[in-house]
Parts: sequence; structure tokens; C-alpha cells
Amino acid sequence: MKIVTFGEIMLRLSTPGYERFVQSKSFDVNYGGGEANVAISLANYGMNAAFVSKIPDNDIGQSAINSLREFGVDTSMIVRGGERLGIYYLETGDSMRPSKVIYDRKYSSISEAEEDEFDWEKIFDGADWFHVSGITPALSLKTRKLTATALKEAKKRGVTTSFDLNFRSKLWTKAEAQACLIPLMQYVDYCIGNEEDAEACLGFKSGSDVNSGKLDKKGYEVMLANLCKEFGFKGAITSLRESISANDNGWSGMMVAEGKAYSSKHYDIRIVDRVGGGDSFAAGLIYGILNYKDYQKAIEYAVAASALKHTIPGDFNHVSVKEVETLMNGSGNGRVQR
Amino acid sequence: MKIVTFGEIMLRLSTPGYERFVQSKSFDVNYGGGEANVAISLANYGMNAAFVSKIPDNDIGQSAINSLREFGVDTSMIVRGGERLGIYYLETGDSMRPSKVIYDRKYSSISEAEEDEFDWEKIFDGADWFHVSGITPALSLKTRKLTATALKEAKKRGVTTSFDLNFRSKLWTKAEAQACLIPLMQYVDYCIGNEEDAEACLGFKSGSDVNSGKLDKKGYEVMLANLCKEFGFKGAITSLRESISANDNGWSGMMVAEGKAYSSKHYDIRIVDRVGGGDSFAAGLIYGILNYKDYQKAIEYAVAASALKHTIPGDFNHVSVKEVETLMNGSGNGRVQR
Amino acid sequence: MKIVTFGEIMLRLSTPGYERFVQSKSFDVNYGGGEANVAISLANYGMNAAFVSKIPDNDIGQSAINSLREFGVDTSMIVRGGERLGIYYLETGDSMRPSKVIYDRKYSSISEAEEDEFDWEKIFDGADWFHVSGITPALSLKTRKLTATALKEAKKRGVTTSFDLNFRSKLWTKAEAQACLIPLMQYVDYCIGNEEDAEACLGFKSGSDVNSGKLDKKGYEVMLANLCKEFGFKGAITSLRESISANDNGWSGMMVAEGKAYSSKHYDIRIVDRVGGGDSFAAGLIYGILNYKDYQKAIEYAVAASALKHTIPGDFNHVSVKEVETLMNGSGNGRVQR
Amino acid sequence: MKIVTFGEIMLRLSTPGYERFVQSKSFDVNYGGGEANVAISLANYGMNAAFVSKIPDNDIGQSAINSLREFGVDTSMIVRGGERLGIYYLETGDSMRPSKVIYDRKYSSISEAEEDEFDWEKIFDGADWFHVSGITPALSLKTRKLTATALKEAKKRGVTTSFDLNFRSKLWTKAEAQACLIPLMQYVDYCIGNEEDAEACLGFKSGSDVNSGKLDKKGYEVMLANLCKEFGFKGAITSLRESISANDNGWSGMMVAEGKAYSSKHYDIRIVDRVGGGDSFAAGLIYGILNYKDYQKAIEYAVAASALKHTIPGDFNHVSVKEVETLMNGSGNGRVQR
Amino acid sequence: MKIVTFGEIMLRLSTPGYERFVQSKSFDVNYGGGEANVAISLANYGMNAAFVSKIPDNDIGQSAINSLREFGVDTSMIVRGGERLGIYYLETGDSMRPSKVIYDRKYSSISEAEEDEFDWEKIFDGADWFHVSGITPALSLKTRKLTATALKEAKKRGVTTSFDLNFRSKLWTKAEAQACLIPLMQYVDYCIGNEEDAEACLGFKSGSDVNSGKLDKKGYEVMLANLCKEFGFKGAITSLRESISANDNGWSGMMVAEGKAYSSKHYDIRIVDRVGGGDSFAAGLIYGILNYKDYQKAIEYAVAASALKHTIPGDFNHVSVKEVETLMNGSGNGRVQR
Amino acid sequence: MKIVTFGEIMLRLSTPGYERFVQSKSFDVNYGGGEANVAISLANYGMNAAFVSKIPDNDIGQSAINSLREFGVDTSMIVRGGERLGIYYLETGDSMRPSKVIYDRKYSSISEAEEDEFDWEKIFDGADWFHVSGITPALSLKTRKLTATALKEAKKRGVTTSFDLNFRSKLWTKAEAQACLIPLMQYVDYCIGNEEDAEACLGFKSGSDVNSGKLDKKGYEVMLANLCKEFGFKGAITSLRESISANDNGWSGMMVAEGKAYSSKHYDIRIVDRVGGGDSFAAGLIYGILNYKDYQKAIEYAVAASALKHTIPGDFNHVSVKEVETLMNGSGNGRVQR
Repeated sequence: MKIVTFGEIMLRLSTPGYERFVQSKSFDVNYGGGEANVAISLANYGMNAAFVSKIPDNDIGQSAINSLREFGVDTSMIVRGGERLGIYYLETGDSMRPSKVIYDRKYSSISEAEEDEFDWEKIFDGADWFHVSGITPALSLKTRKLTATALKEAKKRGVTTSFDLNFRSKLWTKAEAQACLIPLMQYVDYCIGNEEDAEACLGFKSGSDVNSGKLDKKGYEVMLANLCKEFGFKGAITSLRESISANDNGWSGMMVAEGKAYSSKHYDIRIVDRVGGGDSFAAGLIYGILNYKDYQKAIEYAVAASALKHTIPGDFNHVSVKEVETLMNGSGNGRVQR
Repeated sequence: MKIVTFGEIMLRLSTPGYERFVQSKSFDVNYGGGEANVAISLANYGMNAAFVSKIPDNDIGQSAINSLREFGVDTSMIVRGGERLGIYYLETGDSMRPSKVIYDRKYSSISEAEEDEFDWEKIFDGADWFHVSGITPALSLKTRKLTATALKEAKKRGVTTSFDLNFRSKLWTKAEAQACLIPLMQYVDYCIGNEEDAEACLGFKSGSDVNSGKLDKKGYEVMLANLCKEFGFKGAITSLRESISANDNGWSGMMVAEGKAYSSKHYDIRIVDRVGGGDSFAAGLIYGILNYKDYQKAIEYAVAASALKHTIPGDFNHVSVKEVETLMNGSGNGRVQR
Repeated sequence: MKIVTFGEIMLRLSTPGYERFVQSKSFDVNYGGGEANVAISLANYGMNAAFVSKIPDNDIGQSAINSLREFGVDTSMIVRGGERLGIYYLETGDSMRPSKVIYDRKYSSISEAEEDEFDWEKIFDGADWFHVSGITPALSLKTRKLTATALKEAKKRGVTTSFDLNFRSKLWTKAEAQACLIPLMQYVDYCIGNEEDAEACLGFKSGSDVNSGKLDKKGYEVMLANLCKEFGFKGAITSLRESISANDNGWSGMMVAEGKAYSSKHYDIRIVDRVGGGDSFAAGLIYGILNYKDYQKAIEYAVAASALKHTIPGDFNHVSVKEVETLMNGSGNGRVQR
Repeated sequence: MKIVTFGEIMLRLSTPGYERFVQSKSFDVNYGGGEANVAISLANYGMNAAFVSKIPDNDIGQSAINSLREFGVDTSMIVRGGERLGIYYLETGDSMRPSKVIYDRKYSSISEAEEDEFDWEKIFDGADWFHVSGITPALSLKTRKLTATALKEAKKRGVTTSFDLNFRSKLWTKAEAQACLIPLMQYVDYCIGNEEDAEACLGFKSGSDVNSGKLDKKGYEVMLANLCKEFGFKGAITSLRESISANDNGWSGMMVAEGKAYSSKHYDIRIVDRVGGGDSFAAGLIYGILNYKDYQKAIEYAVAASALKHTIPGDFNHVSVKEVETLMNGSGNGRVQR
Repeated sequence: MKIVTFGEIMLRLSTPGYERFVQSKSFDVNYGGGEANVAISLANYGMNAAFVSKIPDNDIGQSAINSLREFGVDTSMIVRGGERLGIYYLETGDSMRPSKVIYDRKYSSISEAEEDEFDWEKIFDGADWFHVSGITPALSLKTRKLTATALKEAKKRGVTTSFDLNFRSKLWTKAEAQACLIPLMQYVDYCIGNEEDAEACLGFKSGSDVNSGKLDKKGYEVMLANLCKEFGFKGAITSLRESISANDNGWSGMMVAEGKAYSSKHYDIRIVDRVGGGDSFAAGLIYGILNYKDYQKAIEYAVAASALKHTIPGDFNHVSVKEVETLMNGSGNGRVQR
Repeated sequence: MKIVTFGEIMLRLSTPGYERFVQSKSFDVNYGGGEANVAISLANYGMNAAFVSKIPDNDIGQSAINSLREFGVDTSMIVRGGERLGIYYLETGDSMRPSKVIYDRKYSSISEAEEDEFDWEKIFDGADWFHVSGITPALSLKTRKLTATALKEAKKRGVTTSFDLNFRSKLWTKAEAQACLIPLMQYVDYCIGNEEDAEACLGFKSGSDVNSGKLDKKGYEVMLANLCKEFGFKGAITSLRESISANDNGWSGMMVAEGKAYSSKHYDIRIVDRVGGGDSFAAGLIYGILNYKDYQKAIEYAVAASALKHTIPGDFNHVSVKEVETLMNGSGNGRVQR
């Protein structure tokens, strides 16, 4: 199974422990970005995952590529060049102090990449699945066009597609997002997003209050069913996060696919690192759909996989299929494995 | 607004993570002390905060001063000289294992400072507020006299004063504390302290059991009102800590001022570092009273600010006014800020 | 009071923080092993504790010995030689992700030690207590024989003995364990083990479900009483762990000795490092029996001591008698000790 | 004495030890930039040093400012705003492997600052000296104009000026540099630069081969004298670096001022961190001229101060006047100071 | 160009800085081994390098594989299974204190690998070069046989072969080495080794004293020429190390190939990490012969590349072709690259 | 062989790498002091070494004791109590920047110890050698008396004594030193000290210039012979340090004993940590005299051992007899030991 993802990978500079930015004399170095994170997850599940991007031809860019190769992601279709690798600074929150992200990603190589730098024929050769998120088109007008091209080229070749809405208000407005994304939804098989994303990206409404910490399951089911109807998705999926504090979250997921609703187990998570949680959910979903051909199992896999991600530092989800399945089928009581 | 604080700053040597003293091969280096911590908080809120002390004229003393300058505290009135910078060793507790402090602060420069080393005329020039805690007079007979002088000089110039009782049984006896502090209370506008401190420092009684973890709000209200009455304070204030474990505390505050009682929101805190929590409460209170001129807002600000302090390593509270106000007015659910 | 323990000490290589093995560029270095951990605890309580083993004559072996000497364990009866020091790799779990141990302990010096390398006369000279666990005989046929010899030599000299069943399925089968251990139980005064261990090592049955997180106290009492009856133990003891997650465990203990049942307080633990928790329980028990001559106090001491162990990084339990007794008799609310 | 410097401060991300970029999992965090480094040196000598720049209004920008305040630099005239703080990545060389710098400084706040954001009246109020380097005008057309304005405004007020040529081929071409700088030299009192810089920035020629490691002292003297003559400098100064390897350099300096040549002692340096070496030379020169009013002493101070800089990690030169003078007048044999 | 190497990769546990084993509380984690190091170098030069071995199927083994993938080595022909990954402990020497290696590599997966686990047809498909060292056959009787098979299979397919003698007295005796290696030399095109190795592995004599620090160039030339003659090598090559201290070494190389002698430049090295220095020399040689088809350039490349290796921590040589060529053709004066 | 040493052990807080005090956010933790360092060296040589002191009864004091026990020093005669453990802060120099020590050792437990706290009968029971340095009497009037008592009690029992003059101008004046030490020299068998120490402590003159870096061997010989004559020493010994820079020192030693002069090999040292260098020399001398009964071998051992100390971080010399003898008898060329 070959899965292609397309987007940006950034240098992530995070403060150690719970230090605030103004306290840190060193930054932990990781690399990450929505679609790169998805590719890593899938490679860790033993799948053939390729990440496509444009990355500067210097040692920082090379380090980003190495971080992908290290875990088996195919980086052979990454274009080298451009000015810089985007950066995001991260400090980890605690209790009522939220984690904080400062972006310095403007002018990145991928945001200034040109149409003719990518050979879609080669990229999609033998591909089974294509995944991209709403962050990629939000980067620049150029990536907006590239995302559209990629989705069309994928569909043209019969590749299954998934799209993670992932609205980022610092990158574009709702109006810009909707103008770009609504026309693209016809090329999307599986759409991932919560009610906020659906509203911002697709002009869709849902009554649930995401800050309340309570979940209205029925409301989500209706929302997802309506999303499928309106945009013709094969499936609409959302993770459901209950924010109790920066450390403690509830976590579950819901999916409506081919006319039926599927709801997962619920996990109480003590968070080590929640960045990349959504991406690991998307990757789990792709793995689940491709391998189980059973939507209930797919959503359980997606939720268990992404619950585990929250316990691992860095953007990448370093878990095996066996570990995810043990959690799906087990108690999650965390007894030592000797 | 210019605020002056007076006291000791120490070198803080803490073990990394949850290591015990006998395990550590390195110590994290921070600097801190009650009144210095208050000055840092206020400088972080954009106020003109000056810290007054005596600090040895060597590189360790210079590092203490630099740690204050780094965050904008005015250190120009600090006297240089004397033998040594006081030290406190800290190991961080977990669950039922309490954090442990070993003091090595005897013979510090400030504890041996002389009356004529401080120019109070210059120190209080343009000052709006003066803050000191019960730790400063507890250090030595010399600081006992200096604290009295400072309070009198402040009041003489119409500077508002606050006093944080902060009884430390390792520094002096209750009898010594009361002999020193009771006569000084006439120079104090706002007195901060819980029932233990009030009993130890001022010979005051309250029936609440601080180890029980339960709070008797009404009892506190009466205590604070009586404190005001007996000592003529404009306000008496206490933070209310419920110790569930070394990691988990409940946190709120109460104030009686100018005849009315004010009670704050309550926070559940997962602690990163609770040292300096009380100082950040005092600083929040000073900021609140000076800026909102609304006691309810002031106590809410003090409690929110100090709740945040518990999530930050080191003695200093590195939060902005905006962050505190967001917490005061928000849910504290810790969602990532991108 | 002189206590002798006999077994293996390993190099422990653990990933920092919550890193997974594939993420770590450094390993924290500790040394540990069941009986070595017991000796450390007892030395920290001021007792004369000797650890007996065979350790390679190189710098890694020396470092293991130094880690014991550092805390006052008598290492003078350790034999030097053989091929290698056993290793275990450890990554610390979080939430539903369990801690993971990879053993690389085969061919270790102790597993290939010979009968005539140990002078039991000298080892047990003046000894009051001998402790060994089921891990030691599981290492090899040679240690199987050595363990039997040690227990017999101890009993011959009137030394009280304790045995911690500690079944390890990666080291031997239940059949092997039972064939070895059942005949040895006649030399054991105090047997420590939960229902899983009792079943695996001694062919004993109990109805409780260890994964359920709920405890059937009465069931344990009956089990322990039956164990005493069947094998002639003076006492049978078990710690009771409720696994809520990799971070949160309930912790208590139960003992049936000389015909009576004793049950301890219950603690809620936020785990820093649970490896060595069982060993600190055994050590607490030995200390308690020897010093209090009161089984209720002994089980309380064992549970309080081992609860504290969970809050300390590394295999070793660095707590004093005073700290354990403060917890036994106090609230465990974790207020700072200044 | 008040000294003003104007330019860019960057976030410096360096690999620990001798790691290459592709090996590092953390970066050491420092801040630095030519003119900021000069201001730090001068503040460390007890002078009133102000750094003027534009810095983004986020936590990374604030950390840069804090790093200046920490050592007493006046940051009150820094403008806040703009997009980003420039970055440079650094790996430290060894032997024949050179240190490597990767710049990511484009689009920085200072490079996009506008003329009307700086109040030169206020900036130069009471100033005795103004210092800027050739890096500042090289950043953008905007800083090119700003640098010209600053120099003119300084001279208008009778402020002594120094200019460190510091040609950076990655920022501009020789033609661009010369077009900008030659007309500015009329506003410069003291010009610092080696023969490469003089050639690139001012179209000036010298026969010495900077890669040879050998120095032609007489040649330098003639060059510096000619520079003074041609551009009307009060003094022309160069440090003289003999590159033996990435670790070992020879270091000395030469000055021609008011018609006379001055040559310094020579130092053999084992390098800890040579970034900022040139800036510490410029700062030493400014200090020396202002305080000794003796050019020979000034060049000795500059060379001794900058020799010491090479032994200190980070861009900043943390040495005192006393330490520099001890070296100027002593043996440099490095005996322990107890 | 495809190059295949075959051998063992180990977990390398090294003490930080100059700590001795008995001082370290953490170990730096790297992976390395003669032939793996060669493959990494070649991948860093942009070549298609495959490493063949057997590695245990656990997270430690996976980490070793990831460390190879990270830098682009083809790991697809590595067999997974067996008991353990070999380990070597390393402490770095200084001055007259030598670096110290403790091996714990016995019973490793590769040492117990079976003939039928490797598919030489697939391994050598499209290969241009095969490299192995004398360490691989020294590991066990099984690897002795496997090495012979590999060399024969390579030659059978017309693959050029190189063999680095690398005698390790802790792994086998001279008699064992000679019995194994002399018959294999007929399958070797290029043989690498100094006079000690040649004597130990092949029973060959040379009069030079390797501990003297002086080099007898003529003697080496004769030795290499004789080696070629006696064993029919196309080329015999040696690096020439002058050990001045643990930090300072002289470094050069010599080659006799197809009847002519080639001698390289000489470098003075200040050592950061000399482990892997010989492997980087072998890799440089392979690269040089394959790409320049000019023996003089090849030996220059080999020596420059391996000189650079000594400046980089870890076993792996992270340098580019451009960096090596810059050094070959340049001054090696270590000026900063901006 | 039992050796007793008596003095102070301090907490050593050193900055990592080459950081200056004002840069450090963590301190490396070691423990050390002249006589403690001597005891450690001797324990590392397998001798029975006891350290006698008074150390506070808190966790910091316990850690100091543990650091001695770890390496086998007998700590059973250390008195517990008093106010504090002395501290010294250390930053490591480079090139012409010297290492810097800040003492904070006043009021330490040992400096306030009383005569009757030490049971000399028990301390010297079975002792062969007693060692103390001039630092111990310099601490306070109390230690002055204690040192005299210790020397007399030792001599009374026929214990051989050595005294390392070690003048510290921050602790006492030359007049004080001479008044104390000259009368004590009658109890000293072997006196260690250079010409500076001899002049300061004993009023002795020598013409050599210690800052010159050149050594006048004949002059030293005469000085040592005169010292023996004047004070009746069995031997007078000095290490000879040539300070080239903070990194590079020459190192050798000279001894005049029982009428003959002995001069050692000379070593060029690249320094990792020179603190404790003199103590390791004294310890090597004691070992050499006791074990070789050959003064030439003793001085060679002392110099080789202490040369190695300079390559090891921390105060303690972690080398074995075998390592020292290998260096004494070998080339010191630092080839890797595998």
C-alpha cells in the first residue's frame, strides 16, 4: 500500500520541560508538520508512505529530510531549494496555562514552490491514497494552486483522497479558506474536521460549544452526516477533544461513512505532547480504512493511535500496529511490559 | 507606577526533575526570594519595580542582579558588598513526598547590612507602593531594624505599604516574630497572611485546620475582618491552599478590605513549581489594587496570576497581564494558543 | 542487624523523560536488580545490609558496585569475574502507554557463577535475615542451585528468610518455576507475592482479576492464609496495585502472619518511576518486622516506604526511616518541608 | 559616557559541542549581532551602552531584549514590531573543519524598519560615541538609508563615530557595498576593517594574503595610513587573525591614528567560540579610546579584550575591565585565580 | 554506483565529555561498526550504499537500523532476529590518558547468523563494490564462514572488493586470524591495513615501530608493494597515524596500486572522536577510486575525509564530497564559513 | 595499609564547559577538598583510606559522604553536625583566561569543630600514614588546634606523616601561617610544597620565578635539600608546574629524601580539570613510598598519577595503579585501549 502526503515540514523549536520561552537557554529540536506527521505514522505501521514537499538545500533542510528517512518515509520526491525551512516555536502548557505556538513559517520553500517543480505522474505512480490538510493551501497562493492540482491529479488516477480541514486563523481568513476549499471538496473521499473547522473552512454550522468540555454526540453525528450529504464525501470524521486542562483531555472520535455512524471508545489522557495529535488521528484512520475495511475498527484504531500520540514527545507518533491494537482491544491500564 | 520591594535574594539550587538531593550530579540555577519575586512579577506586568537589598560583590552576586535586570527590575539601589549570597537547596516532591528545602542563608550580605547603607530618600523618591515580607526582619537583628526603618520611611512619604507575614520557624520563634511585627503593623496598609501566619506573627487565632485540605470560608472572612479591625489594616488578604498532594493543590483567595469581603474563583492546579506561589499572589494583589481600583478584580487577578505561577519552573512568575486577564475571564481549559 | 541479599544487579539504561527508545540520543544510567534494591533500602534505613552477587571485573561492573557502596551497602562479599553485567533497557510509559522493559541479561556473570565461588560461612556470619527473590533462580540452572544452597545455608544458621516470588515469564516457564520453587518453600519464613506470582511459581490459585483495577480484600486474605497453611510460612504478604494508568496507581498491602491478617492504608500514587516498587515493599517489610516486632506497623511501613519509592527516579528507594514514619503517621498531603 | 550602537540582533541556534547540524537534537540558544555585541561589551565595562534596533513584539523578540538587559544594556530605544527575529544557525568547527554559519535573517523586523520609527534626537541625547557596522546597511535598502541617517544625525550632534566594515558576501555584492559605504565614510571617525573588508567595501587594495596565516605588519601599517588619508578617518584599525586551524589562531591588532602607527602584543588563542571576536575588538577599541586617551593602550585593550572573547561561549564578551587590564599587563599564563 | 558492506553494527554507549566510566550518570547513544560506518560515509557522498547484517527484532535493533536510514543507507537487506545487539562502551581519552573501549558484543545476532539467512544473489544485484573488514570474521565461526561466502559470491559476480584487515586481539588470536584470512585474500582487490595488521592477520613483517610516532615512509612503500605482490592485490593501502597524545595525532596515507606508490598530504589533527577514523578512510578510498579513477586523488580524498572524521563526534563521518574536496584542495586553516 | 587524612570536603559547583559564572543556568555538582581528594586517590589504588572531618547532618552533607563511600573511602570516623558544608564555585579557564574559584566556605562544620569531637585513639588505630595540608589549619583557630593535635597524636603512635603546605592567601596571612606551621614541622616526615608555599608558610626563600614558565631544576634541588635540613624532614617534595596557558601545562616533580635528589619524567598536559592536581600528586607520593620503597619510583608514580588527574573532570583522581604504572613505564601517546 502506497500513501502519498503533501505539505510543509517545519523545524520545531521547543523549550525543555515546562519552561517558558523567556526562560530557555536551549531548544529541543524536532521536525514536524501535518502531512509529514501522517507519513511518519504510516511508515511506523509498516506502510509505504511518501512525503512530498519543497525543502531548502541546506543542512537544516537536510536534517528535516533525515528525520523522515530515519523512520522509513520515502523522501525521494521532495524538491530541494528555496529560501528557508519554516519554523515553529513551542512551549508546553500545564494546568490552566495553555501550550503556546509562535509561527515563523512565512517565505518557506514550500510556500514559494512552483507548479512545474512537481511531477505528479511519478508521485502518484502506484499510489493508493493521497492525504493533504487545510494548512497546505493556507500557506500561500502558490500552495493553494498546488493543493488543487494535487487533489485533481490524484482523483484522475483513482487514488483515494483524504482531507483534514485544520483551519488556522493565523494563515488565512474564513472567507479565503472557503473560497479555496469548497470547490476542492468534490475531489475528497474522506473529510476530517470538527465543527469549528467545518464552519470556518466550509461555511458549515453546528450547535456544539467546543470550549464547554462537554460533547453532544448526537449533534456530531448529524453534523457529519450532513457534511457527507452536502459535499458528497464517502466519509466525514472528527476527533472529539474535551479540554479539561492543558494536561488532561478526554479523547474519542466519530465517523459517518457510507450512511452509517461509528463512535469510538473514550480515553482519559494525561498529555505529554499534544502537537500532532490530530495528524496521528488522520493517519490511524487511513491505516484503519485501508487494512481493516471495517469503519468501526478504523475509527477505534484512529482514536487509540492518536491517544497514544499524546503520550510521546515530538510531532511524530512512534507506535506500532501491535501497540495500537493492544490498546484498542485492551484495558489501557498501563501495566509495565517486561 | 513605581513599586519598591526590600529583602533578600538567594541562589536557588534545585535538583533536576524529581531527583532527590543524594541523586543529583547537577543543580539547576535560579535566583529568588520573597520580595525579589514580587518585583519580578510587577516588572513582567510592565510596572516600574525596584528591588532593594545588599548583595555580595562577586560573580554569584552579579548573577543574582542580572537575573533581575533580565526581566526589567530596577536594581540601581542595591548595595554591593558583604560576605556571601544566601543559598537554598530545593528538591521537588511528588504525590505524598513533599518538596524539601534546605536553607544555607546565614551570614548573607543582606542579613549583615547596616542602617546607613541605604538612602531611603532616594529609594522612595516617586514611589507609590512599598512591599516587604516577614522573612526580611526574621533574617537578623540588623534586618529587623532595617525593616522597621523602611516601613516608617515609606509611610512618612505617603507610600502605600503591603506586608506578607510569611512566618518561617527556622528563622525565628513566634515570640520573636510577635515582638518585632506587632509594633510594625501600624505602618502597614495591606496585610497578607493565612491563619497560621497571623497566629505565629501577630498572636492571632483562627479555628481552621490548614492540614485538613478543607476550607472554612466563613471562618476566613471573620478572621480577616478581625485582623483589619485589630491592626487597622486597610485590607487583610489570604490565599487559600488545599494540599491534596505534592502535585495537586486547590487554590483560591479571600480579602477583606475597607469593610467588605471578596472571594475569588477556585483553581485546581497540577503543580510544576510551587515555590514563589505566595509571592506571585502578593504581586498580583498589588497590581490589581493599583490598576483596577476594584478589590474583587484585584483578588481575582492575584489568584489567577499565582495559579499560573505554579505551572512555571523557578521562583519567578513569567506571565503577562494579558495572560492573567485571559485566565481571570476565561475557562482555564488549556487549549493550545496558536 | 545484618541483612544479606543475593541476586543480580544490572545496568539500567533508560530514556530521558517520556521518550521512546527510537527517539533517545542518550540513556540515563542507573543500576538495579531485585535483591540489590532491597539492600539499598535497608542501608538507607541505617541497617547493615550486604549484597552478594558475581559482577564482572571491568569498569561497568565497578560502577555497579560503586552505586551500592555510595549508599552504604556492604559489597565486600561480591565475587568479581565472568563475562558481562546484565542490562535492562527501560522507557517510561504515560497514560495508556505502558512502561517497556527490554532485557539483555543473558550470559551475565551471576548467571554463570559457580557454587564454590561463594563462602556461605562468611556471608552468613552474624546475619539476622536473608532475602532472595524468584528472579535469581530463574536466571540459569546455576543460580537455581545457588539459590537453594543459599536458603539452606541460611536456615541451617537460624537466619530468618524472606522470598519474593516475582515470576518473570521471559526467564522461565511456570513448570520450571514450580519445579524449582515448591521444594524451596520449606526454607522460607516470609513469602511475598501476589496471586499471579503464587499461581505461576507455586501452582496456587486465586480468583481475583489483577487487571480489573478492583481489589477483593477478603479474597486476598484467604489466599494469604492458605499460602501460609500450605507452605508453612510464618507470614505471606502481598502488595496490592490498582493499575489505573501508567501514571496513576492505587497502592496498599496485606499480610497474614502467625494466624492473623493485617491490612494497610491505601495510597493514590502519581508515578515517577515504578521500577523497584515491589523491592522497596519487601525491604520495608523486613525493616518493619525486625524493628517494630508488630506486623501491623510492619505492613504500614512497607506500604508507605514503597509508595514513596514510586515518586523517585531509578530502582533505588532513597528515603529515610523518618520520612517513611512521617508518611505512615501523617496525611501525605505533600506540603513543602522548609 | 554614553555609547549608542545600531543594528540587528539575531537568535543564534548552535549545536552543542562539536556536533554537526545533522546530528543535533537540541540547539543552544543565544542572541547576538555585531552592534548588540559591542553594546554588551561596553555595558560589561560599566559604561552606559544603548542598543537601537527593531525587534518583533513576541516572546522570541522579548528574549533577545532580555539578553541585553541582563547585562545592563539600555534597550529603551528599541522599536517593537515587524515580522520576525532573524536567525543564524552555527556549528563549531575543529581542526581543519571550519565553523559553519547558516543565515535565516531575511525579512527580519530591523530589515523592514522605516525611517520614522526612530527618534534620533532622543537616541543621541547625551551620546558620546556612535558605532555601526557594514552589516546593518547590507541587510536591506531600508537599513541602508537608516544607517546613513544615523551616521549623519550622530555627526550633526558632534558624536564620535566608529564603523566596522565587516563585509558579508551573502548579504550584498562588493559593488552594492561600495556604492553605499564610500559616501558614508565622511561621517566616520574611526574605521575598523582588514584588507579584505577594505577592498570589498571601499574598493581599497592591499597585497597581504589573508589565507596564508602569515602577517606582513609593514604592509598593514601602510594600508591603514592610506585608508586614513583617502577617507579622512581619524583612525583606521584592524585586528590581525592568523588562522592556523579552527581551534588555534594567532591574534593581534594594528592601528594608525592621527598620523602614528600602533601595534599590539600577540596572543596564541585556543578557541572556544570565535563568533563575536571582531565585535569585542571594536568594543575594546571604543572603551580604550574613551578611557585611556592613549592609542597604544587602546589597541592593547582591544586586542586583549577580544582575545578573551575567543575563550567564552556565545556572541557576548563577558569580561571586566579588570580582567582585560590584567591580561594587557600580565603574562596570560592562565594560572588559577583563587 | 552501488556499494555493499557486511558486518556488525553495535550500540555505542559513551560517557559525556571526558568523564570516566565510573563518573557517568548518562551515556551518549550512537550506533556504529566498521562496515556500517563505511556505508554511512558513502551514503553521505550521495552513493547507493547498502549495509548487510543481522539485527535483533526489538526497539534497540530498530534504533540501529533507523540510524542508518537517517543518512540514506539501504537497510532493506538486513536480516532481523537473534538475541541481542552488541554493545561497546567508550570513554574518551585526553593527553596521555588513552580512550578506552569495553566490548560487550558476544552472542550478538550477527555473530550467530546462519548461512541461509542471506540471499547473496539479491544482495549483490547491481553491486559495484563490496567491502568487509577483518572484524566480521573475527566475531564467530559462523561469521568466519559468512565472510568467506560473501567475498566469493562478490568475486563470482565481478564485484570489486576491499578488505580492511583491522586486527582485534580481543576477538581472535593471530593464528586464528591468519588461518582464516590468508586463504581469503585471493578474493580481495584492495587491502587496507597497517604493518601491525598485516603482521597479525597475514603473517607479514615490517620494521616500523608504530608506537614511536615517527614514520618511515620508504619502509611503508616497500611493505605495501610486497603485500600486493604476495597476495595479488590490485592495491594495498594504509593510513599512517602518528600518536602524539590522545588529542593530537598526525594523519596521512599511503597506497601502492598497480605497481605505483602514492603518498598523501599530512594533517595535524586535534581529535574530537577518533573512533571510526579508519572506516572513514576506507570509505574515502572506495569513493575516490570509483569516482576519480585516479589513485593519487583517491588517497588524498581518503585522507582528507578521514581527517575530518576525527573532528566529529560519533562513529559516523558526516561530511559531504564538497567539504572533503575543499580540504583536499585547500589550506585547512579552518576559517569560518558564513 | 591504612592511611588517614584530615580536613575539609566542600560542595563544588562548577559551570558546564567553558561558561562563565554569569552565563550558567546549571552547575555541575562534585565534592572535593585537599585531604578528601588524597583519600579518594588512595582508595582507588586499593588502599584502606579513611577521611576524617566534620560534616553537617543534612542531605548535602550526606551527599558529600556518599561521594567518598562510592569510591571506597572509610567515612566511619566522620563527625556529623554543625551549620553548613563549605562551597566553592569554579569556572574553567581557557587559553589566557584563568580558571576562577570563588570560596564560600566560612562557617563550615569542620571550621567550627571542637577538640573533643574526634577520638584520635580510634582514628589512628592501625594507621600507617597520616596526611594533612596547610588548608586545614588555615580554616579557623579551631582547625589550627585540631591539626596540631592530629599531627602530634599521629607521631605519638609512630604513624608516618605528610604535610602539603598549600598556602591560601584568602584564608590566612603569611605571618599567621608561619606562626602556626613552623612549630608543627617537627611532626612531619614528608613535606610537599613549591617555593611559593615554602616561602609563605615556612618563611623559606627560593630564587625561581613561578610565573616565568621556566624551571630551574638545580635551584629546586637545593631548596628541597635545605628544607629537609632546616626542618628535619625525611623528604621534601615539589611538583613543578609550567603554566603555558590555562589549557597547556608542563608537569614534573622533584624530591629530596634521605639525602638524595630524585627528579621525574616531564609531561605535556592538555588540561581537562586541574583542580585536585596537587592532591593527586601527594596521594601518588604516599602510594609510591609505601608500596615501592624506592623514592625514584615514588616520584615517578606521583607525577604520572597527577598528570592523569589533569585529564579527568572533578576533584577526584579516578585512575588505577595499573593505569599509572602503564604511563610511568610507557610512552603516553594515548593510543586507544580496546
